[in-house]
Amino acid sequence: MAGTKAETDPIARMYADAFRLDEGFTMYLTQPLHRSAQQRPDQVATVFSGREFTFAETYRLVARLAGGLRSLGVQRDDRVAILSLNSDRYLQSLLAIAWADAVVVPVNVRWSVKEIGYSLVDAGVKVLLVDDRFAGMVPELSAQCPQLGIVVHCGEGPTPAGAVDFAALAESEPIPDAHRSGEALAGIFYTGGTTGAPKGVMLSHRNLFVSALGSAAMGLGTVEGRMLHVAPMFHLAGLSFVIVNLLLGGEHVIIPAFEPVATLAAVSEHGITDVLLVPTMVQMVVDHPRVGEFDLSSLRNVTYGASPISEALLGRTRAAFPSVALAQAYGMTELSPVATLLLDSDHDHPVRRRSAGRAAPHVLVRIVDPDGVEVPRGEFGEIVAAGDNVMLGYWGKPAETAAAIRGGWMHTGDGGHMDDDGYVYVRDRLKDMIISGGENVYSIEVENAVASHPAVAQCAVIGVADERWGERVHAVVVLAPGAALTLDELQEHARREIAGYKVPRSLEIVSALPMSGAGKILKRELRHAHV
Amino acid sequence: MAGTKAETDPIARMYADAFRLDEGFTMYLTQPLHRSAQQRPDQVATVFSGREFTFAETYRLVARLAGGLRSLGVQRDDRVAILSLNSDRYLQSLLAIAWADAVVVPVNVRWSVKEIGYSLVDAGVKVLLVDDRFAGMVPELSAQCPQLGIVVHCGEGPTPAGAVDFAALAESEPIPDAHRSGEALAGIFYTGGTTGAPKGVMLSHRNLFVSALGSAAMGLGTVEGRMLHVAPMFHLAGLSFVIVNLLLGGEHVIIPAFEPVATLAAVSEHGITDVLLVPTMVQMVVDHPRVGEFDLSSLRNVTYGASPISEALLGRTRAAFPSVALAQAYGMTELSPVATLLLDSDHDHPVRRRSAGRAAPHVLVRIVDPDGVEVPRGEFGEIVAAGDNVMLGYWGKPAETAAAIRGGWMHTGDGGHMDDDGYVYVRDRLKDMIISGGENVYSIEVENAVASHPAVAQCAVIGVADERWGERVHAVVVLAPGAALTLDELQEHARREIAGYKVPRSLEIVSALPMSGAGKILKRELRHAHV
Repeated sequence: MAGTKAETDPIARMYADAFRLDEGFTMYLTQPLHRSAQQRPDQVATVFSGREFTFAETYRLVARLAGGLRSLGVQRDDRVAILSLNSDRYLQSLLAIAWADAVVVPVNVRWSVKEIGYSLVDAGVKVLLVDDRFAGMVPELSAQCPQLGIVVHCGEGPTPAGAVDFAALAESEPIPDAHRSGEALAGIFYTGGTTGAPKGVMLSHRNLFVSALGSAAMGLGTVEGRMLHVAPMFHLAGLSFVIVNLLLGGEHVIIPAFEPVATLAAVSEHGITDVLLVPTMVQMVVDHPRVGEFDLSSLRNVTYGASPISEALLGRTRAAFPSVALAQAYGMTELSPVATLLLDSDHDHPVRRRSAGRAAPHVLVRIVDPDGVEVPRGEFGEIVAAGDNVMLGYWGKPAETAAAIRGGWMHTGDGGHMDDDGYVYVRDRLKDMIISGGENVYSIEVENAVASHPAVAQCAVIGVADERWGERVHAVVVLAPGAALTLDELQEHARREIAGYKVPRSLEIVSALPMSGAGKILKRELRHAHV
Repeated sequence: MAGTKAETDPIARMYADAFRLDEGFTMYLTQPLHRSAQQRPDQVATVFSGREFTFAETYRLVARLAGGLRSLGVQRDDRVAILSLNSDRYLQSLLAIAWADAVVVPVNVRWSVKEIGYSLVDAGVKVLLVDDRFAGMVPELSAQCPQLGIVVHCGEGPTPAGAVDFAALAESEPIPDAHRSGEALAGIFYTGGTTGAPKGVMLSHRNLFVSALGSAAMGLGTVEGRMLHVAPMFHLAGLSFVIVNLLLGGEHVIIPAFEPVATLAAVSEHGITDVLLVPTMVQMVVDHPRVGEFDLSSLRNVTYGASPISEALLGRTRAAFPSVALAQAYGMTELSPVATLLLDSDHDHPVRRRSAGRAAPHVLVRIVDPDGVEVPRGEFGEIVAAGDNVMLGYWGKPAETAAAIRGGWMHTGDGGHMDDDGYVYVRDRLKDMIISGGENVYSIEVENAVASHPAVAQCAVIGVADERWGERVHAVVVLAPGAALTLDELQEHARREIAGYKVPRSLEIVSALPMSGAGKILKRELRHAHV
């Protein structure tokens, strides 16, 4: 896009000729690519597996890849799915799908073939991009999804028979950006939920842009920084930080999936300024025996999502990253995803650090009763949110949409309360409550007490069936390196923190907790082991 | 809004009952007030003339003031004008007008009665808020504007006969927020322009919100900081920073109008973190003989708009505020107003610091030829911009709107070029060019050369009629404290910086340059003196 190239570069010329639309330009995902190609064409846009692309190269590749998708028959509003670990090609594909006026369906890589097939059929996906890791699923998915005509191989290995080669597709004739924007559907994001069939969350370009802009306004991300992407891009937590970094013109350093040493090495090697993690990832990094071997001094912002950080882990994180600003982002796919933010200074407050923070600038958040009336501060209710980040709805599910968005407010299904200063305390995520001896016990409260024991690296608290108590409070613990813990020691410690009926009555020590692709602890799996 | 008050506070109760809409909530100006009242009810929202209001108090006052406007007959979409110097009541009125579902018309306080009357008639203003300074204009305005039924006195002195008292109005029965938002018209902002009748720029709630959010994302403003408002609130430059500060939850310290010692004193007294100035204001502060008497260590961000800062002034500003991040914002009312930003680090680059910076995250900017085709980098053309910040149009002027917004792009009427890194150089603002001996001379280039002379505090360069040259390059200079300057000295200095035909042929030394309400140098007035 550099001006000197404008006369010789066919894409720049095509762009200059075609970029005259009859509609307004509102917020859209490819807009930051235009800006960065204009402002820093020769700076690195993506680093993946030793491979670099500048913004100008990415711009050209995306225009050609979109042309390739068009040549495969992808038309306006068609759905194109991506089933892949993180890569530069994932990011390029996200942008090319929008550029071609189509809709992306990022697939949850932790799902079973059957679940994935369900989502592809439900969304009417026509083209699937798949990497080496998941190429083996293709025959079964094709059998399950008759409408799935074309498979593009976006992996690094040889392209399987019958699949289109990504590199070849990215050399197609370029097309001009459709500038798909504003209220237009950007993607369908399937959420598992705890009950019923998966639902496809429809997010518009503006939805995604606004959440990222609001997060950036509060200091999450660095202008022209270097962001490491380790959280999966299919998930809104990871994707939203891809968008924050696009908006801020930063370099994207990408590793296929989270792994603690690879994360530490990438921070050190690339001078990473920003990273999004989830608490389980934070713990695995902070407590890793090799953490001291790496130079982490470039890090400025560590944002963590999906669930609150325990106080013990917070202390160890502060010690490991003394110059880092921490932030917690709470939200959900339906909110594109950010609703509240717990900023760095909030972490030093003994009570507030247990909260999910306060409403971000782009959103209003309230706690309401079942009739939608706001409850007094401190009282329990459902967390609801309203703003330009509220999803368009659930794909093909108008009744579920109407049930979720009432009077303009997205009803999160999460319970909690708000204090006098607007801090939201999520008490009841996914009904994560134990009823023991007739008393309600909130797992998060017990988890905070357990995690504050110095021997505990990570923990989850669940209810297990018990003849005497109905449900028994049960702690599952990953020990800190070299530490040991008995049930007696844990109970003695917990009794100093919480009421007796909340103290765990049993303890299970494990080497790791089961995690979702987004890094949430899979309590369902823990509970299942006790049925 | 604190929860403990929910049962006894009639406004909180009213709010809880009524706050259930049938539409979505998108971006709107009163949204940050809801957030701040929720999150920091007891913190100071506004400081003006020794008077403070907390966010909770402001929230209640705005709900009551909106109720008062409603009781005066203000209905949905009605226009309510404000003719006032800056005050807390200005800010409260802006919010109350939106709360009441009406449209604000902020009046340019530098205009003549005739010009103001024109805008009030053109916008069909029904209610006018006026302070002490301008109360004397009311009889003449009323005669000129038959539709103007009601005048509210928002000044500090006694309420004139026939006017409604602001304080009494602010004790009316509260009404629920209309949550006027998204594409709905927020305000009509009259721009003088250089030719023809003033035009009313229609800006939506989203327009204003997006420009502020994009500016905040780039670090303009401080989260929960203290911002000083000295630039006039009627102008988009000043107003946009009011909105940035609303979004970031900061305290608003307000003085009626810019004055260097009052500005310095306010920074020192209130621990100001952020201020928007224009270069003329920067100069008057930096060069003020008393600048050393004040503790300015709290200042974090100084943003200046309206025109580029000269290199000499930049050096003195860096010396006076060593720990401040400077930013230049370029834009126009029609862009709500921010298009490009020159960030702090850009100021240290010898070439880029002469530019207006690069496109902000919420906008695309290009340089186009008369057919709307992008010109190669480095070539001169018109600056155009596209994004959610482009105005809805000119009030009652569809032909002018269609001429200004073509293919989704706002045509600024400013000329300039863009370098290979996306920096925009405004060369031809308001046709600010001199044709001398057949050569085009851009004033800004000469001004930079003149301003770099150590004796020059501030300058403006204009063309004046000349028998020999057609137009002669003429420099008008304010001297630095204690300095002296002759034409010979100036010419000798300028010849080292710019071509001979650009060197001023005459010099005029003045004590101050005429400024617009927004702090732009009024070259028209300078030129007028030479006709």
